[in-house]
Amino acid sequence: MAHADPARLDALFRPRSVAILGASDDATRISGRPVRYLIEGGFKGGIYPVNPNRETVQGLKAYKSLADCPEAPDVAIIAVPLALTEGAVRDCVARGVRGAVIFSAGYAEAGEEGLAIQSRITDIARAGGLRLLGPNCLGIFNPRIGFFGTFTQSLDREMPKPGELGIVSQSGAYGSHIAYLARRRGIGIGYWITTGNEADVDVSEAIEWMAGQDDVKVIMAYVEGVRNGPRFRAALERARANRKPVVMIKVGRSETGAKAASSHTASLAGSDAVYDALFQQTGVYRATTTEEQIDVAYACMRGIFPASNRLGVVTLSGGAGVLICDAAERHGLDVAPMPDDAQRKLKELLPFASVTNPVDTTAQALNDMSLLARNIEVILEEGGYDALIGFFTTVPNTRTLSAPLRKAIMDGCARFSDRLIVMAMIGDPEVVRDYEAAGFLVYEDADRAVVAIAALARFAQAFARPAAPAQVAATGQGSLPKGPVSEPDAKRILSGAGVPFLDERLATDAAAAGAAADAIGYPVVLKIVSAAIEHKTEIGGVMVGVADRAAVEAGFAELLRRAALHRPDAAIDGVLVAPMARGGVEVIAGVARDPVFGPVVMFGLGGVHVEVLRDVCFRLAPFGRDEAMAMISGIRGHALLEGVRGAAPSDVEALADLLVSLSRFAAAHGDDLESIDLNPVLVRPRGEGVVALDALLVTR
Amino acid sequence: MAHADPARLDALFRPRSVAILGASDDATRISGRPVRYLIEGGFKGGIYPVNPNRETVQGLKAYKSLADCPEAPDVAIIAVPLALTEGAVRDCVARGVRGAVIFSAGYAEAGEEGLAIQSRITDIARAGGLRLLGPNCLGIFNPRIGFFGTFTQSLDREMPKPGELGIVSQSGAYGSHIAYLARRRGIGIGYWITTGNEADVDVSEAIEWMAGQDDVKVIMAYVEGVRNGPRFRAALERARANRKPVVMIKVGRSETGAKAASSHTASLAGSDAVYDALFQQTGVYRATTTEEQIDVAYACMRGIFPASNRLGVVTLSGGAGVLICDAAERHGLDVAPMPDDAQRKLKELLPFASVTNPVDTTAQALNDMSLLARNIEVILEEGGYDALIGFFTTVPNTRTLSAPLRKAIMDGCARFSDRLIVMAMIGDPEVVRDYEAAGFLVYEDADRAVVAIAALARFAQAFARPAAPAQVAATGQGSLPKGPVSEPDAKRILSGAGVPFLDERLATDAAAAGAAADAIGYPVVLKIVSAAIEHKTEIGGVMVGVADRAAVEAGFAELLRRAALHRPDAAIDGVLVAPMARGGVEVIAGVARDPVFGPVVMFGLGGVHVEVLRDVCFRLAPFGRDEAMAMISGIRGHALLEGVRGAAPSDVEALADLLVSLSRFAAAHGDDLESIDLNPVLVRPRGEGVVALDALLVTR
Repeated sequence: MAHADPARLDALFRPRSVAILGASDDATRISGRPVRYLIEGGFKGGIYPVNPNRETVQGLKAYKSLADCPEAPDVAIIAVPLALTEGAVRDCVARGVRGAVIFSAGYAEAGEEGLAIQSRITDIARAGGLRLLGPNCLGIFNPRIGFFGTFTQSLDREMPKPGELGIVSQSGAYGSHIAYLARRRGIGIGYWITTGNEADVDVSEAIEWMAGQDDVKVIMAYVEGVRNGPRFRAALERARANRKPVVMIKVGRSETGAKAASSHTASLAGSDAVYDALFQQTGVYRATTTEEQIDVAYACMRGIFPASNRLGVVTLSGGAGVLICDAAERHGLDVAPMPDDAQRKLKELLPFASVTNPVDTTAQALNDMSLLARNIEVILEEGGYDALIGFFTTVPNTRTLSAPLRKAIMDGCARFSDRLIVMAMIGDPEVVRDYEAAGFLVYEDADRAVVAIAALARFAQAFARPAAPAQVAATGQGSLPKGPVSEPDAKRILSGAGVPFLDERLATDAAAAGAAADAIGYPVVLKIVSAAIEHKTEIGGVMVGVADRAAVEAGFAELLRRAALHRPDAAIDGVLVAPMARGGVEVIAGVARDPVFGPVVMFGLGGVHVEVLRDVCFRLAPFGRDEAMAMISGIRGHALLEGVRGAAPSDVEALADLLVSLSRFAAAHGDDLESIDLNPVLVRPRGEGVVALDALLVTR
Repeated sequence: MAHADPARLDALFRPRSVAILGASDDATRISGRPVRYLIEGGFKGGIYPVNPNRETVQGLKAYKSLADCPEAPDVAIIAVPLALTEGAVRDCVARGVRGAVIFSAGYAEAGEEGLAIQSRITDIARAGGLRLLGPNCLGIFNPRIGFFGTFTQSLDREMPKPGELGIVSQSGAYGSHIAYLARRRGIGIGYWITTGNEADVDVSEAIEWMAGQDDVKVIMAYVEGVRNGPRFRAALERARANRKPVVMIKVGRSETGAKAASSHTASLAGSDAVYDALFQQTGVYRATTTEEQIDVAYACMRGIFPASNRLGVVTLSGGAGVLICDAAERHGLDVAPMPDDAQRKLKELLPFASVTNPVDTTAQALNDMSLLARNIEVILEEGGYDALIGFFTTVPNTRTLSAPLRKAIMDGCARFSDRLIVMAMIGDPEVVRDYEAAGFLVYEDADRAVVAIAALARFAQAFARPAAPAQVAATGQGSLPKGPVSEPDAKRILSGAGVPFLDERLATDAAAAGAAADAIGYPVVLKIVSAAIEHKTEIGGVMVGVADRAAVEAGFAELLRRAALHRPDAAIDGVLVAPMARGGVEVIAGVARDPVFGPVVMFGLGGVHVEVLRDVCFRLAPFGRDEAMAMISGIRGHALLEGVRGAAPSDVEALADLLVSLSRFAAAHGDDLESIDLNPVLVRPRGEGVVALDALLVTR
């Protein structure tokens, strides 16, 4: 599905005029709510309720039809029943409307008949240059201009305040839910869109559009599944390039969940592990819970992304300090100790304090707040921490201490405006607002604060990474053969792409096999070669440790006999003679094809590690060396490559090169390639490289 | 450290009269606060401020000394400076006070000098029958009788309401923090105690005492480390036996955290993995975050522990339903589908609904609440769910729908008072209270609700388990030899304890070795036997695959030569002749000695799994078969025992028996045993048992 220029969403997000087709005078009805919200929101452009049966709608002049409206509205909200939608879409096209929002359900999500209607209206819209949002969605809003093209009842009690958060959600109810939570957390919303069935506008285009807006600082998204993987990837890459953190809920990780997701919308769920890989690569933060999603988005709004993962901790409670240390380690932050000299200074200030980090000032610091201020100053000045967390339990909520405590922390931080200062504290809403106004992030729970800090540090790393390599052109890599590929062909092709193999020779008679073995040196391995025989070991088609020329020649005959016995119809190319490879750690590398995202590179340790323990790591092709190194250290068993039980550390650099080569090859041949298996790959000690012992290449 | 009868804490928790030594007229000072809190709390017993310099303290008659008080108070709060504490303790003993609370710091946590004072006052108290709480603690309270022996400033704004939650904390500040959070969550507190340096009363005794109180329903605890492991275990076992859920924060999981914990108090941290094992065995819920601790304790207060892990989900939002499925799987709950027949019934009620589970009623259900009620009734009646979670986003907070929605859910649940009904919803405090009063648990975040439900199901399992086996007497198991134990001796001893070994024979000359091999059958393994040679392979002391009698006899001589070469001073017992063991999965089992908890049984898969991947599981000895089975399935790689790559499933029953035997042996010889290593143990296919190939036994 080709998307139009993302700028074309401008009319949907920032319309100058809005018509409501089927507008109701009853402000509580689905078809009445958008009118009410537009009025209450103070929308400055034209509001044109279309209702052939009324003179006015909620106090506004009503129009008999779209054609009657004084101008072609930028957006038409189609709040008519399913049966009337197709006509309404035609009317929009005829009137030159730029975007339409369709609320009603009963389309692709409801079965074949609905899908047919959806296809028809989509075709009509596309042919007429009309952008469609929905159907089966809750609409869109932009509080900055008072545009509310939605019937979400979550606005009933209170309208959102404008701000710099963008929300993109495939689920209308979930999108409403997080918008409400964001508002309660004091986060203003710039743009909010729910995409429903995604007949035209989808989450990818919405994210891409928001990533290009100067007045969007953070993007929250809810995704069940996307249909166009590359487009989604490009949108997330654009957000990263523009330093817009994306805080994502992607549901369907569990089997039941994935099933429920596919019954809920018309989305194609794809493999969850591939989404994980994509989020890793594009620096998207995948939140597990709604609370975490809001917590992280809230933190991102502050706009400070710590350059390192070093965390300073200052508390009034030793116990909480320990708890925070545990949380920091769990989430990958480093509660590094203060330098000795700084510890001495702190000890002079507060003789009873623990001064290592966590710094426990004890309640003593509350008796002389200037000591606390100086304490914090020393920690920030000499500790080298890019983020500081202060745990002050309920003290900020005590009448006498709240303001002086806040001032002391502000004084301590005054010269360090680039540092992230986070308070873990309990306070009434107005107290929290005061602390926030002073520039601090505020969390009630220390662990949640730590999670958010870790997320910010992760964004800093993602923003600092170079852009992903561009798609690799297949030209220069040659094209893949059609049909089955024999092992020597697979190796030749992949060798050309940078995958190292052993010095192997194809022999077509026993004497040639013996000569090849003489040249290679004994012992050797013999393997039958036939494109028709994928799994050689199953027919006894591999002999290892063949020790001398006579054995090689006899082996040649025996392999041919076995092949003839088990697969009499297979065309045999000959026998491969290869050196015995020993030493090194066995790993598996490969490429699989995800139906949504295309070629995906896989890596894991050999044997039970991948097959039974599922200790495996994925990345979307293509990717660069940093990503390959992250992949290698991303498996649980990565310590096995660091040299255990006295073994030398493995050549992970060469392994990374192999993964990068695989990824470039896979990207170049994306459409023609079904899968690659390199199993095993031997990773030898550092400096000695890697070698793939077997290769299976399946084309499409 | 021997503890007194736990009933002796009665006086501390429920005093009839209280003296405050060093009472201040200033209600904001540490020495003034307890007086203020006792007055504000409405304590009915005698309150005796002791202050030689004043006639009255905060409006109460002051006494010159303890001796002056009209009666011997049950509790004396010692709020005097460090230097006067020893005298105050003597006065308490002289006056016949039953319990004393010492607030001041500067004792064991401050260094040698402080430790000396602490030891002195502890000796004085013990000799005089006085129970001590602290020093370096925030005290104790019991809101039901208005007793507040604390200076925690968290009571400044509001006193806790009485209730059935017990709080035990080694950290005063953390204890205050969670008491405040519990109050905000509407949970009443029965007893609250902070133990500080634990010169006498410790967390174990406090938990054990609370476990025995009828008016305590749930126990929350914060622990940095305990000194007396068996006592702690007994307290937790008692809580489980009495069906009192214990919701625990145990800090120090991270290295920095453990270091910070030991500098914070005088506790001995012990091994964190052993605490995990203990909590598993005793059914304690170890919370990771404060929020989780409160969430789970709040859920426990409802008193319904679901008999199964089957969870019904009803939502107004398909998206939230998927999110909840994911959360349920993550936390071990089963979102099992509705029976077909029930699905048909639901579909009749709400044609647009998803009816599998999660049941997505869509907003349609809000138009006719009786449909929602009937829907819920069908789910509970026919779904077989012991817990139901309803996700209703902000609907309960809308003026018109809140009460009807609540009534509909109540109607639907009316006949199922044994089921746990949990609402994930956003509501103002009064709305939440209304739902709680109707019998529902309320969480804002769906994931947090799922975590709590999973915790309750886990408690149900723990409460249903039989009591842990009593300590095993060493009598009947014989006593262990002193000094090094040779391999044959180790095998003989452990074989007697129920560990299966191969048919091995010790030969003292070459001919005997040959005869033994003839009897066993070839090939055999030969091993040098000497108590002085622990690691035989390092000196080449093991030969495998020895194929015939001649090779056995030659091997005997060769092994003796190698031993003489590498360890000329070692006394040689002979050579062990053993069958070659093949097949099965290699695992490791062993016993180590934890300084706090005594013998701990360890289990893991062989090779890199334990050494590199740290995939290992612990339990405190002794334990029964269920616990052993839980241990086996508790390692990440347990699938390797289920039969992979076509292999037969392993005999995990026999492996469980071996672990139970080890645990009973270890418990019986706890004080004499340093460690046992069975490495490897071969677990053969089901029905063929296990066999330990090597044994190393180290005595103390």
